[in-house]
Amino acid sequence: MSICEKYFPNEPEKPVVKTSSFPGPASQEGIKTLNKVFDSRPAYFITDYEKSVGNYIVDADGNAYLDVYAQIASIGLGYNNPALIEAAKSDKMIRAIVDRPALGNFPGTDTAEIIEDLLKAAPKGQDKVWSGLSGADANELAFKAAFMWYQGKKRGFNTPFTAEENESVMKNEQPGSPELAILSFKRAFHGRLFASGSTTCSKPIHKLDFPAFKWPKAEYPSYKYPLDKHVEENKKEDERCLKIVDEIFSTNNIPIAALLIEPIQSEGGDNHGSNEFFQGLRDLTLKHGALMIVDEVQTGVGATGKFWCHEHFNLSSPPDMVTFSKKFQSAGYYFHNPEIVPSTAYRQFSTWCGDPARMILAGAICQEVIKNDLPAKAQKVGSYLFSKLEALQAKYPKYLIDLRGKDRATFIAWSFDTGATRDQFLKDMKSVGINMGGCAETSVRLRPTLVFEEKHADIFVAAVEQVLSSYK
Amino acid sequence: MSICEKYFPNEPEKPVVKTSSFPGPASQEGIKTLNKVFDSRPAYFITDYEKSVGNYIVDADGNAYLDVYAQIASIGLGYNNPALIEAAKSDKMIRAIVDRPALGNFPGTDTAEIIEDLLKAAPKGQDKVWSGLSGADANELAFKAAFMWYQGKKRGFNTPFTAEENESVMKNEQPGSPELAILSFKRAFHGRLFASGSTTCSKPIHKLDFPAFKWPKAEYPSYKYPLDKHVEENKKEDERCLKIVDEIFSTNNIPIAALLIEPIQSEGGDNHGSNEFFQGLRDLTLKHGALMIVDEVQTGVGATGKFWCHEHFNLSSPPDMVTFSKKFQSAGYYFHNPEIVPSTAYRQFSTWCGDPARMILAGAICQEVIKNDLPAKAQKVGSYLFSKLEALQAKYPKYLIDLRGKDRATFIAWSFDTGATRDQFLKDMKSVGINMGGCAETSVRLRPTLVFEEKHADIFVAAVEQVLSSYK
Repeated sequence: MSICEKYFPNEPEKPVVKTSSFPGPASQEGIKTLNKVFDSRPAYFITDYEKSVGNYIVDADGNAYLDVYAQIASIGLGYNNPALIEAAKSDKMIRAIVDRPALGNFPGTDTAEIIEDLLKAAPKGQDKVWSGLSGADANELAFKAAFMWYQGKKRGFNTPFTAEENESVMKNEQPGSPELAILSFKRAFHGRLFASGSTTCSKPIHKLDFPAFKWPKAEYPSYKYPLDKHVEENKKEDERCLKIVDEIFSTNNIPIAALLIEPIQSEGGDNHGSNEFFQGLRDLTLKHGALMIVDEVQTGVGATGKFWCHEHFNLSSPPDMVTFSKKFQSAGYYFHNPEIVPSTAYRQFSTWCGDPARMILAGAICQEVIKNDLPAKAQKVGSYLFSKLEALQAKYPKYLIDLRGKDRATFIAWSFDTGATRDQFLKDMKSVGINMGGCAETSVRLRPTLVFEEKHADIFVAAVEQVLSSYK
Repeated sequence: MSICEKYFPNEPEKPVVKTSSFPGPASQEGIKTLNKVFDSRPAYFITDYEKSVGNYIVDADGNAYLDVYAQIASIGLGYNNPALIEAAKSDKMIRAIVDRPALGNFPGTDTAEIIEDLLKAAPKGQDKVWSGLSGADANELAFKAAFMWYQGKKRGFNTPFTAEENESVMKNEQPGSPELAILSFKRAFHGRLFASGSTTCSKPIHKLDFPAFKWPKAEYPSYKYPLDKHVEENKKEDERCLKIVDEIFSTNNIPIAALLIEPIQSEGGDNHGSNEFFQGLRDLTLKHGALMIVDEVQTGVGATGKFWCHEHFNLSSPPDMVTFSKKFQSAGYYFHNPEIVPSTAYRQFSTWCGDPARMILAGAICQEVIKNDLPAKAQKVGSYLFSKLEALQAKYPKYLIDLRGKDRATFIAWSFDTGATRDQFLKDMKSVGINMGGCAETSVRLRPTLVFEEKHADIFVAAVEQVLSSYK
């Protein structure tokens, strides 16, 4: 029995399409009602979470879509997963919901155990964690850690603050509030608050009208596909991009405390970097005395075939911080260097310091992922799916451009010639019962659950062919 | 039967003190273990949430403290409240935990109802809500709304972005990423991310080593107490502070999109502003074409005798946005003006757009607060407590300086002559079974639950007297 069958004996055998418009009439009505009190314009449809199961998301009209988007890459174990329902019903969870602690001041008798559960999934080399509430929050908390570390290194980690620092910071002025930067990449997505937003660089709509920090952007490689036919060119692209990073570190007018990067730029188009590129970045951060923060918000928790995507890269030393959210359901950053613990209490702090309810769920997710070896299973089904898509690509080259994600399990994407064609394709996929999402201007990305199996891949590929064949 | 007796038949009759050191030996051990994986330096003690009940928080050593701090003002209905346990066990909650939706793209069939429940507690004049995850997040989301509104007003709300805006924003440069400011106040606390941190101005430790936006700070009134003996001086103080705000609006080198203020500055020392001061601010924001954002993160949900503290102020028109978190357990902002809905979808957006699990709990909390008329009950017990503290003040004037919060229910604070005395007092209160918290440098603040009753007030006042009498 497959893991999916074990979890979801009642998962539909195939999509069910009941309406001819998407969203269907009941969803349209629901979206209109919701819009009176909450901005519902981005809604794809109204979801019936009670009826959704495993890899299938069901809408208010009874359409059951095979879901390869999974709440923007956030549902790892399928809808209504029984192991998670059990965790949700536990006394520990109920207390975490009802008696939400201020975790910094009043940790519970179970807090160490909850954190230790999260550490069972820690990337190699990381043995501590700090918790937040979303991917943007996780990244900004990591920025704070990086800035404290950078200044601590300059001043001496145990050197007290000067009177001038204590006074100037209250006016948001130097030296207490220094000019420091995070170096990120063009096409990056790291969240949409103000500091994380200043590192995000994928679409204007995320940022327009907001003040931003004047932080620099390097270039993320743009490879030619298929990779095995463009080895030399792509190698040069790595070298070009690494050189730019080196130059920015040397010449930027604001000192750079940390480099921030996604192992695969997801929102920005599923752009990949080679192992060599990432190895080069790790070495450049060491050379220039900056931290390396790897943003695994979308790539983490198994979807690329390893629990953490950067574990593919064979870095010379582990990254300094790894941020997480989405499929983890809880958010925060892992780290290992004791210098990244702030010099005194209360420098990295907030009322809640994370949400134990979401941390308990994260622990349950990690346990299931590890116990069932889901990253390896994702790798297997991903290879199967990738070959099928390669075959389709040979047949419909115009609609399967730059197929990417080979050897990254189900973390697969491809492009269309225009945004209009991509948008039409996404719409048409709904009509054959597939819920999927785009990225960047002309691409689609697959972000299925970790219990997406070969039978689902077959349904998905047949649906793609059905749609594309209608375009011929 | 009182509401507390109804909820908590097993609440202890009085504090139980079992150890002679605080934290006790079991807490000390737990803090040490936790510190291996998580920064536990700020921990007061290790809490046994299973044994905590109503107004009593129990630690790992079996000490049962009367809790007038309540998870930094975040537990409204007492520990292990049966009404909230019921909500936590509901199918709706379990689904929200297990199938956490990306609420913007995939709202559920129950989302409108969940939001409508939140709106039942909306401040007068507010009929829409946007949801986030913490107080800092709520404030920053409100800043984003304010900046979009401000630029929309200049450009025309339906005017498309120019090519120059779309290009410059990707470099974090003007005009796409404009220089705009939020005006906040000295001694304010609005959170500790980068933009919220730039508006926070209560303690250097919150901000040291972090880059900040160069946003201006006005002056929050510093009144002389007792208020009824210093009417004229305090009126002049209001006028002085309003004049400063007016001048900053007129002369600040960066345009100000919104004024952000706490109805009572809490972390910054429980500083109060008069109704006239807040009325003046509302009028100044209207005069200068800026929004007024009221940060009710700590003051909201009944603790000042009204559901929202600013409802005491009789403003000429409702504030433009009201942010919430803490006792609400969910976070976000209320608003009413349709111009504050961004011009297009996806401008105010994130993966999760809030947490329905926490929103369901917020709905249950609101329902209990309204049904049991808890703000009025808090007002009554607060008046009782305030009189008792006034009597103590007459006896121990040196240790009860500037007693404040009259007519603000249990939202009461006072000051000591030095920080050292304050710290010693807080420590000594533990030894007589009271868990309480400080604010600013020399003050203590009372933040009990909404089910804190006269019998608890008696215990608290007796404990204060026991400690203070030992100082004589």
